[in-house]
Amino acid sequence: MPDLSALLSPASVAVVGASPDPHILRGRIVTVLGRHAFPGPIYPISRSHAEIGGRKAYRGLAEAPGPVDLAVLIIPAASVPAALEECAAAGAKAALILASGFAEEPTEAGRGLQDEIRAIAARTGLLVAGPNSEGFANMALRLCPTFSPAVDGEDMELVPEWSRAGRVAAVAQSGGMGFAFYDRGRPKGLRFSHVVTTGNEACIESLDVVEHLIDADEADVFLMFMEDAKTPAKLARVAEKALRAGKPMVVAKIGASEAGARAAASHTAALTGSSDIYRAIFRRYGVVEGRDAEEMADIAAAFSHFAGRLPAGRRVGIFTGSGGGGGWLADACVEAGLEVPALDDATRAGIDRRLPPYGSSRNPVDGTANAIREIGYARMKRTIAGSDSVDAVLSIASARNPLLFRREAEALAGLARETAKPMAFWSYTLPHPDAAEALARAGLPLFTNMRNAARAMAALAEYGERRRRFLAEPPAAAGPLAPAAAAALDRAPRAIAEVEAMAVLNAAGIAAEAGTLVRDAEAAGAAAERYGRPVVLKIQSPDIPHKSAAGGVVAGARGAGAARRAHDRIRAAVARNAPDARILGTLVQPMAPPGLEIALGIDNASGFGPILMAGLGGTGVEAARDTVFAPAPVSAEEARALLGELRCAPLLDAAARDVAALADLMARLSAFAAAAAGRIAEIDLNPVLVHGPGEGVSVVDALMFKHSDERRPGPAPAPPRTPPRNPNGDPA
Amino acid sequence: MPDLSALLSPASVAVVGASPDPHILRGRIVTVLGRHAFPGPIYPISRSHAEIGGRKAYRGLAEAPGPVDLAVLIIPAASVPAALEECAAAGAKAALILASGFAEEPTEAGRGLQDEIRAIAARTGLLVAGPNSEGFANMALRLCPTFSPAVDGEDMELVPEWSRAGRVAAVAQSGGMGFAFYDRGRPKGLRFSHVVTTGNEACIESLDVVEHLIDADEADVFLMFMEDAKTPAKLARVAEKALRAGKPMVVAKIGASEAGARAAASHTAALTGSSDIYRAIFRRYGVVEGRDAEEMADIAAAFSHFAGRLPAGRRVGIFTGSGGGGGWLADACVEAGLEVPALDDATRAGIDRRLPPYGSSRNPVDGTANAIREIGYARMKRTIAGSDSVDAVLSIASARNPLLFRREAEALAGLARETAKPMAFWSYTLPHPDAAEALARAGLPLFTNMRNAARAMAALAEYGERRRRFLAEPPAAAGPLAPAAAAALDRAPRAIAEVEAMAVLNAAGIAAEAGTLVRDAEAAGAAAERYGRPVVLKIQSPDIPHKSAAGGVVAGARGAGAARRAHDRIRAAVARNAPDARILGTLVQPMAPPGLEIALGIDNASGFGPILMAGLGGTGVEAARDTVFAPAPVSAEEARALLGELRCAPLLDAAARDVAALADLMARLSAFAAAAAGRIAEIDLNPVLVHGPGEGVSVVDALMFKHSDERRPGPAPAPPRTPPRNPNGDPA
Repeated sequence: MPDLSALLSPASVAVVGASPDPHILRGRIVTVLGRHAFPGPIYPISRSHAEIGGRKAYRGLAEAPGPVDLAVLIIPAASVPAALEECAAAGAKAALILASGFAEEPTEAGRGLQDEIRAIAARTGLLVAGPNSEGFANMALRLCPTFSPAVDGEDMELVPEWSRAGRVAAVAQSGGMGFAFYDRGRPKGLRFSHVVTTGNEACIESLDVVEHLIDADEADVFLMFMEDAKTPAKLARVAEKALRAGKPMVVAKIGASEAGARAAASHTAALTGSSDIYRAIFRRYGVVEGRDAEEMADIAAAFSHFAGRLPAGRRVGIFTGSGGGGGWLADACVEAGLEVPALDDATRAGIDRRLPPYGSSRNPVDGTANAIREIGYARMKRTIAGSDSVDAVLSIASARNPLLFRREAEALAGLARETAKPMAFWSYTLPHPDAAEALARAGLPLFTNMRNAARAMAALAEYGERRRRFLAEPPAAAGPLAPAAAAALDRAPRAIAEVEAMAVLNAAGIAAEAGTLVRDAEAAGAAAERYGRPVVLKIQSPDIPHKSAAGGVVAGARGAGAARRAHDRIRAAVARNAPDARILGTLVQPMAPPGLEIALGIDNASGFGPILMAGLGGTGVEAARDTVFAPAPVSAEEARALLGELRCAPLLDAAARDVAALADLMARLSAFAAAAAGRIAEIDLNPVLVHGPGEGVSVVDALMFKHSDERRPGPAPAPPRTPPRNPNGDPA
Repeated sequence: MPDLSALLSPASVAVVGASPDPHILRGRIVTVLGRHAFPGPIYPISRSHAEIGGRKAYRGLAEAPGPVDLAVLIIPAASVPAALEECAAAGAKAALILASGFAEEPTEAGRGLQDEIRAIAARTGLLVAGPNSEGFANMALRLCPTFSPAVDGEDMELVPEWSRAGRVAAVAQSGGMGFAFYDRGRPKGLRFSHVVTTGNEACIESLDVVEHLIDADEADVFLMFMEDAKTPAKLARVAEKALRAGKPMVVAKIGASEAGARAAASHTAALTGSSDIYRAIFRRYGVVEGRDAEEMADIAAAFSHFAGRLPAGRRVGIFTGSGGGGGWLADACVEAGLEVPALDDATRAGIDRRLPPYGSSRNPVDGTANAIREIGYARMKRTIAGSDSVDAVLSIASARNPLLFRREAEALAGLARETAKPMAFWSYTLPHPDAAEALARAGLPLFTNMRNAARAMAALAEYGERRRRFLAEPPAAAGPLAPAAAAALDRAPRAIAEVEAMAVLNAAGIAAEAGTLVRDAEAAGAAAERYGRPVVLKIQSPDIPHKSAAGGVVAGARGAGAARRAHDRIRAAVARNAPDARILGTLVQPMAPPGLEIALGIDNASGFGPILMAGLGGTGVEAARDTVFAPAPVSAEEARALLGELRCAPLLDAAARDVAALADLMARLSAFAAAAAGRIAEIDLNPVLVHGPGEGVSVVDALMFKHSDERRPGPAPAPPRTPPRNPNGDPA
């Protein structure tokens, strides 16, 4: 838990490299700092000027007349290491590196410089932000060490005085996108506490900033633009902290597409990783995925008003003066995962008394424009919210005309204070600024985009569900590894072929048909005879991952003779197709009854901890990409919910398939993977045959890989994909 | 093809019910009309005022000093019929009814009045728009017979003089939403030609307006808000005309959710119908589905600039000064169905020469902010567009500062004129109005929402694909009904049970296992013996739709004895469970080999013509709702593409299943349904078993229903769901 106060809330600031020329970045930052009334001293540091922006300049940090908490470095990359040493020597506590020319450049020199600043931070204990950052803004302190035009306005009020909502912090690796959140969100009345852009994150990462702001209670909602989590293990930890604190994280994760990942990698040296893994973690910890800046600002607006009054469910009441708009918004709400149920009869009767004959009280409640003028939004919203049929209320307005909102200002403010159910407006016309301000003063969100309105209300409901579930039943921690499984793992090589993997699974309490490993035809025949039913024979070799393609599989051999012949056929084919492969033997297994082919897997090579995968198995599974993911371990109940999200969920109907057995297998497999996280990097069970109801599942093939640097003993967090890079007091 | 000129482009206008009080709707419309310089005479008609809004008022239409083309009626509903008669008598050609109180009210009186005005229109030949309409605006004529605040501005320029793009018409049933398109789109630089709101559509429907504007070539792109297609058959006809003309329709179809349909029904008496059917028609005729007003305005902006220069494919080049924005937009493009490929080496080399070392020429091309200032957007866009690797170019800008765009204005205008590939900008900051205007003048779209930018470019690509495919291979027309099939249909009752349905299918050239209908156990045994393999026995009755539930099915009977026993067991069970059912007999069929269960169907009861449905079959099919739809007939190739859109498409891998045979069956079934459209209302084949590759399909159960008002002979458009309501020269 890093304390970033010296960086984000310093008592004094020095600008190393400051210039009086407002047309270059080194000058613009001085201008921007000067526009806002930061209460502490600001020291320009310059070799060539005695005064900059009306402030006395100093030749070095040591010459500043008072202590410097934060040094902002806007100097060439090559000069940064020496400047950091100077910061440390002068007693500065934090350095913000705005310079670029580090790991974002595809050069040895850039990477070398970034390693160097990391080493200096580790040695000196200096808090180092950046490099390649666009700086930050701390609105409460009126401190804007950045050259972003977004806070470069004359007489600019960083936070409109009429903002009533909770505090929103924008945290982004990208400077442009971080300040774009502010640029887009401020006119919507979002009350920003901070914009922090972290650049290359040589030391301090976005998630450190979020954690600090949670710990210091300086923000209530987080808008994030994330290219990667440099230290993967932080993601789940910080997301869990945010969820427990009830401070929602709304995150745009870049790199879902190859081109997106390419772009991220080329400009902040990010490793974007698998979006499946990020999504699995987001989902568990209630992180809301955002898709564009406006949508995210709207979601943040909903949270900033109602994070403390989350809806009990997904049922929305809609009140409209435009019948067309009512139908459209109802469709959008349902599309976003909300419900728009008909209102109960008592509420309807209360509404009908006030409506003209062409109105409708069903839901959407179509009040007609005249009725709205007469009844008022506040009264109607209160009536609808009083119904037990709804958990939230959305009203449709044409906020082009501010009169109605000004007239109702007090009633709306009272309603906003008192309501236990979230309430908001969608304006189908562009709102008049006065209408927007009136609603912001009242404390109610005004959305201008219809689908964002629906999505924001849905985000409240989903977040509420996830948070309640999380607090009621926190995900299980990894248990200990069963001694028998540990022993089986000890015996196994790094690449664990089927026969050995089956033994490990059995030792871990996961039923799998181990079969009989044989080395000659005679033994194959004997095994087949012993099983007394058709068998399958499969070559076992760490060098033959695709057994069928190598001619290494014969299915359906009946009786000893057939098994013997199958054995010899396999060995001959393998000798021909893979002459150099190391052969463990041939596995003889009784044929499993037919079933739906499902693939299960564990990916524990990413640094995010073991992730369970489930998907349609068999041929074509890779092309289908019909897969779901969750952090291990999962309960059987979570497993069932996950399976329900597969495109092919209809095939996993409990009336047709033993879904309970499959969910149980997923729970056991993921518990084992979590317990063995320090040792196992990957598990593939493909296919798992899912039989009819009550008939269970058959694990008929398995593969495992241990970590190349397997650490014993047992349960431990997986190793980060990249070495921890933040030596500033973060245990990570 | 109705000519609506007298309505939408009248030479003179009368306002019946005009008032001098600007606070009521009857007065506001006079104000609004007066704000715009309509060149023809406007006659206020009033019993109580001699002058209104500076114009001499008349007591009746007949007293107006000149002929009246269009009479706008803003009077109580009950007075409308008499006023219409007066219009007709005075020689008016069109009437626009703004009054409400018709079929949108749940009363007999309202419905009756609407029927009455429909009858008057039919008898007199008057073009009647509305009732319950908010009027329209014809921008070229500066004619705004509406009380909408959207066109009620002092010194308001209906179309900014700097608009360079194609003409956009907004056509909506809902007045609020129709003018909301204008309210949202105008600031984005959309050049609106019309806003037409059609209300209850007693006579003139939205699709009539679109058809008129296509025929008269008065608009190039259509933004529509559609609650229903009152005359279903018009939808495909008008959509096809628009597609052929290259005038895209961008449509919000309301009623996808139950609540949305409820709202639409309650305010304009709409029958929203199945959104699956609308989607199937939209898809075939290149209608673009819109999801909110901003998105639709952005899609319209893209079309208004580039409908004549559609991209050849889905490959987009991205140019950015913000690395973070580049990755985000790339993700959004891929999510929207576009591709963001790496650029070719030659183009990259040309770009690399101009970029600093931390830029990237791959795609997104990350130019960095400095390089953009030096190289300029126009030059970089031209370079990227020169690459054979891309079909369109999107640039990312911070348009907060207009300087760059003003400086490049000429170069951008030249580029916009010359480019064969669509080009656009996305600004991640809120654009300065001058920047927006500079780009509009240049003739390039500026998007402010990132996902809308991606979606708009994707809509260009998709529309291009659909239009090229449609023009190259127009969908087949319905063929003649095979005489044998016609004869089989003649023999069949209205509800056609399995055994008869199988005979009809076979007569239509669709292989289906007809089996043997037996009436006693002896015959059942003989049939089983003749087949020489296991059989299934199924009760046949028009009164037993769910045979299994009634105990009417026994599968897997082997040999004569088992078949005899099965027969008697079935009859006993049916006698017990459905004692009153009419029994045709028991069908004995050889058991089909196992296969994937698919359901196929034809829905021809909607009035939109026969629609083919395909989906996962068997138990749970209804819960799964995994279905796809297309207007019949479809080619086998279209059928395969359709199947690819099922959630369960992975199961229909050609390596595992005879997809070709299934597609062929879909083509045959849909051709039969189209040929028999005048006779058959519904067909259900469930399940169809899809066997392994080369092993074909088995139709093992079938049901059909004839239209209750079956019209013979054969192929004809299906009857409209509601009687045609537009007697104004439209053949409907």
